Amino acid sequence: MTYCVAIKVNEGLVFAADTRTSASVDDVRTYNKLHVFEFPGERVFVLLTAGNLATTQTVLAQLQRDMAGPAPQNLKTLRHMYDVAEYLGQLIVRVRREALAAAASNSTVDFGTTLILGGQIQGEEPALYLVYPEGNHISSSPETPFLQVGELKYGKPILDRVIRPPLSLEDAARCALVSLDSTMKSNLSVGPPLDVAIVPRNALRITHKLRLDLDTPYYARLREAWGQQLASAFRNLPRFEWEPPTLPLQQAAQAPPHPTQQQGQQQ
Amino acid sequence: MTYCVAIKVNEGLVFAADTRTSASVDDVRTYNKLHVFEFPGERVFVLLTAGNLATTQTVLAQLQRDMAGPAPQNLKTLRHMYDVAEYLGQLIVRVRREALAAAASNSTVDFGTTLILGGQIQGEEPALYLVYPEGNHISSSPETPFLQVGELKYGKPILDRVIRPPLSLEDAARCALVSLDSTMKSNLSVGPPLDVAIVPRNALRITHKLRLDLDTPYYARLREAWGQQLASAFRNLPRFEWEPPTLPLQQAAQAPPHPTQQQGQQQ
Repeated sequence: MTYCVAIKVNEGLVFAADTRTSASVDDVRTYNKLHVFEFPGERVFVLLTAGNLATTQTVLAQLQRDMAGPAPQNLKTLRHMYDVAEYLGQLIVRVRREALAAAASNSTVDFGTTLILGGQIQGEEPALYLVYPEGNHISSSPETPFLQVGELKYGKPILDRVIRPPLSLEDAARCALVSLDSTMKSNLSVGPPLDVAIVPRNALRITHKLRLDLDTPYYARLREAWGQQLASAFRNLPRFEWEPPTLPLQQAAQAPPHPTQQQGQQQ
Repeated sequence: MTYCVAIKVNEGLVFAADTRTSASVDDVRTYNKLHVFEFPGERVFVLLTAGNLATTQTVLAQLQRDMAGPAPQNLKTLRHMYDVAEYLGQLIVRVRREALAAAASNSTVDFGTTLILGGQIQGEEPALYLVYPEGNHISSSPETPFLQVGELKYGKPILDRVIRPPLSLEDAARCALVSLDSTMKSNLSVGPPLDVAIVPRNALRITHKLRLDLDTPYYARLREAWGQQLASAFRNLPRFEWEPPTLPLQQAAQAPPHPTQQQGQQQ
């Protein structure tokens, strides 16, 4: 399985993905799911991939082949982000159809793949698209500023609460990491290391690309801080009317934690 | 859809459930999914239900009929919590089979229902069981102190972080409410009001049963506090190395929030 998320804020785009793939629970591997196509100063694309890994790899190879060969439509030549989403949709449908045709007729393998495309072409707005295995696509919007693929439910509540267009790129990236971290804690099919890429509006390049493992200092600090902050947030929730009264929130934050509650926050 | 959670801590049992049922998006109703069978001083059972509502209602009616009539096996007579889980499993399989037999042969309706059974019989430990539509069941354990049915993924991360056997009943109930609240924010098929029941170890009765709507004062305060606490937790996360340095956590909590970050925390 997989979990990838892409966020569009006013300042630009943020992408984050795990790297765990599993054909079954005893066939678990690590693969990059965040793919960069960068033509600095002209155009930049990031693809996040979920689904059949063979289809994904064939699609990525074809994207390179189209750029190297005589194909009139490729990532270097297409005029608009919308056209790139169209092109990718047609490509994943074609690769899937060819894989189905080549397979034994009774194969039940799902050859589909789902993509998130994000990026910017010079002269255009930054854009995010979710391209379905059927080839059609939807874009993000101010009301829906993030798109997810894969195991998306565990990490959605924090995105729903935090992500708004005025957020800074760094806050959006932190929120994506918290969303991935919560997912990894609750679902073994999503796993480290994590990849993050940041594409500021009009930079027309990736300004920050990080690979974060559990022991990468920043990610280790972030996980520890989030665990502590959540425990403290939980400790400060209002008490039921039949419980002994407690201090107001501001004072409680400075008081020693309630002994019974603290026991429950062992991680 | 539905989301129900039951938690077993050292002090006893906590149950929580939403009340939204939907046959389709334009057929949404409110039904109680938390059912109490209480024989104070002798035995107490709570059932949480998810799945086909007609099957659930038939099962509940049959439970009452078995207690009123000559059935040798019923909630008043069964000796062990395990036997009650067995009895419920057999009952939901029978009701499902009868519904299937009565339906047109090409019906594709899923008549299955999934139950969480919790409670205590005098002289026994409190116990929690998840009874599958196939009639088999699993129990909770110290390593798996909570059981969920329905739309369980959104609300699982906070349970995974917080729920441990030494937690107080009230903290377990608060955590269940936060888990339900996060689910309702991210998924329209789970909705208010919420039901909560608390069964302390050896009380052999429900000591607290709450129905909480969005405007019930305690739940309104809890939701507001959790939103604020989460926003503050997010604000206190460590910054990327390329960001301007910030104050240490303790000082930052007392300092005015960072202006860029504050924008992102509009709810």
